[in-house]
Amino acid sequence: MLRTCVLSLALSGSLILPVAAEQLTSAQDYAAKAASQAAANATAGDRSSPAQVSPAPSADVSPQLQALIKAPYPPHFNADPKTADEWKTLINQRAQLIMTALPAVKEKLGVTVEPSTIGGVKVYIVTPKSIPPINQNRLLVHVHGGGYVFAPGESGTLEAVLMAGFGGFKVISVDYRMPPDAPYPAAMDDAMAVWKEAVKMAKPQNMAIFGTSTGGAMTLAMVLRARDEKLPLPAAIAPGTPWSDIDRIGDTYKINEWVDNILVTWDGWLGRAAKLYANGHDLKDPTISPIYGDFAGFPPTILTSGTRDLFLSNTVRTHRKLRRAGVIADLNVYEGMSHAQYQDVNTPESREVFTDIAQFFDRCLGK
Amino acid sequence: MLRTCVLSLALSGSLILPVAAEQLTSAQDYAAKAASQAAANATAGDRSSPAQVSPAPSADVSPQLQALIKAPYPPHFNADPKTADEWKTLINQRAQLIMTALPAVKEKLGVTVEPSTIGGVKVYIVTPKSIPPINQNRLLVHVHGGGYVFAPGESGTLEAVLMAGFGGFKVISVDYRMPPDAPYPAAMDDAMAVWKEAVKMAKPQNMAIFGTSTGGAMTLAMVLRARDEKLPLPAAIAPGTPWSDIDRIGDTYKINEWVDNILVTWDGWLGRAAKLYANGHDLKDPTISPIYGDFAGFPPTILTSGTRDLFLSNTVRTHRKLRRAGVIADLNVYEGMSHAQYQDVNTPESREVFTDIAQFFDRCLGK
Repeated sequence: MLRTCVLSLALSGSLILPVAAEQLTSAQDYAAKAASQAAANATAGDRSSPAQVSPAPSADVSPQLQALIKAPYPPHFNADPKTADEWKTLINQRAQLIMTALPAVKEKLGVTVEPSTIGGVKVYIVTPKSIPPINQNRLLVHVHGGGYVFAPGESGTLEAVLMAGFGGFKVISVDYRMPPDAPYPAAMDDAMAVWKEAVKMAKPQNMAIFGTSTGGAMTLAMVLRARDEKLPLPAAIAPGTPWSDIDRIGDTYKINEWVDNILVTWDGWLGRAAKLYANGHDLKDPTISPIYGDFAGFPPTILTSGTRDLFLSNTVRTHRKLRRAGVIADLNVYEGMSHAQYQDVNTPESREVFTDIAQFFDRCLGK
Repeated sequence: MLRTCVLSLALSGSLILPVAAEQLTSAQDYAAKAASQAAANATAGDRSSPAQVSPAPSADVSPQLQALIKAPYPPHFNADPKTADEWKTLINQRAQLIMTALPAVKEKLGVTVEPSTIGGVKVYIVTPKSIPPINQNRLLVHVHGGGYVFAPGESGTLEAVLMAGFGGFKVISVDYRMPPDAPYPAAMDDAMAVWKEAVKMAKPQNMAIFGTSTGGAMTLAMVLRARDEKLPLPAAIAPGTPWSDIDRIGDTYKINEWVDNILVTWDGWLGRAAKLYANGHDLKDPTISPIYGDFAGFPPTILTSGTRDLFLSNTVRTHRKLRRAGVIADLNVYEGMSHAQYQDVNTPESREVFTDIAQFFDRCLGK
């Protein structure tokens, strides 16, 4: 009895005392932080925020996505290649990583990828095992992401594979030219050359363009150029977390800096790639930063981002600008997600994103 | 000539040298920050982010909203009333501020506010100068925000005035009972008593419920209760940045803590009000935190938030959960906006938000 009682006291002591001490410290920490924050934000001006330690959210986030949210920064986030050769070494390293993972994704989704050429431009024809009857006469064009430098060749087809597999669409993925060899406007010229031919392969009203990040910006810029060049427009577009302002302009470039564990900061490889691509052209050129274009007459648009995404502002600025121009625009923001993390086939959120896009396309495209 | 040359040198020195020094320092600062951030985020786990100074964004943000984004923290963000009297003093102070501003808003929008009683509950009937023919048989019910403690009486009608004025709808604004006198479930019981009578005043298919923050959570919880109590559902709802998880659960409770200059942190008055309201009830009760409810069969829903909103996660979790339940749900996130800053009538974004909601209601409601 005595032994039980002592054990019980010891147990309750070990359980309760440290918690109480922790709570006390925590309350003191909070009071100090609240006071210093109040002082730092007592007058109008810039917002001062303190260092934070943020656990990955768990509510309404799959365990697979939680693991991605917890992942460390990518080793190359601050890469600073000084020569074309240094860029190519980094580009090849990163492409190899994707190419190692890609076969399992194609296998899982039953998708084949075949190289081809359209309008003189290298492309990949991405085809799911079975295309539902309603999608037989539909055709999608994909422009990949990677900051205008990464994901050359087949390594750029990952998102096209996801869309083909989850959505049941045939996809043309454009392997556009990139820096260091081919800066702006080579990528856009290649994408437009493909678009010009693709609209002869299916009815434009049965077609959509999609892409993430750089591919999202290019998707928007392709509509601007198609309109200017009197080419048919797609019936819908899906710019995922688009790099619509290539410059460091937009609130979450700062608010989610060091929080997003994919891009991390504009000041690392990303901004360096921006300058390499723009090659002295004005970063506010609407075919470089499409947020500065006129969105009137755009086709219905579905956008995707996350609460930790460095490009959340790029995404919501694009969404609002489309709505202000009277365009149908559907915004989806995922809890805790950093930039483009929906491209991991092993997360249920990946299936959700591409199924949402497929349903949106289904509503907007002819048959 | 000599003098000109010296002056020119001095000028160029004063212009160029400090900039160069600043750039050097900035590059060194960045390099140091990148290195320490890389070290702090080199392994999987919690995200470590540094202290930041974030200017208000200017691109695609009105000057009026920019001024709100630059505003200091509200003096009461960390208020900690210890007694019912202390709560009431704070509540009255805050209500007085709104009541001072409200007449100009009513005047500007041509809206009248009349006290009344429906189902034994105090309400305000909020009526625009002219109601367009299409809205003649439509009726909205409004539940105000304020953390279940603030905005008693007519001070709770601000958002109803904005909706009536910008949207051209007749609105019933519920003056529900609140803590410290009346904790959960008084507020919800009052709102439901009004809803039960209101559905006799118009066809439910011509009706919508809306509210921001606490009012957004109550909007969602009212649909849950209406469904459970076999009452008619509204044809649409507009929970603005809803407090759908009253507990500190959700990524932006942390990511946007000290960034949002309206709510600032859950650990201030907000969490204290949560506990005062819940009064010992489980914070995961779906009529307290509706994110834990079943959203199947919900009416079409339009949601609004901002990139700096402490409740951005509350909003996007609600959006995704609705979509996952097959509900039509439209998400709108404003660049740089903290919690519910769209309620300032002097921002163009306020007109935009309520016009968007009005158009959404127009598409969903019968005539």
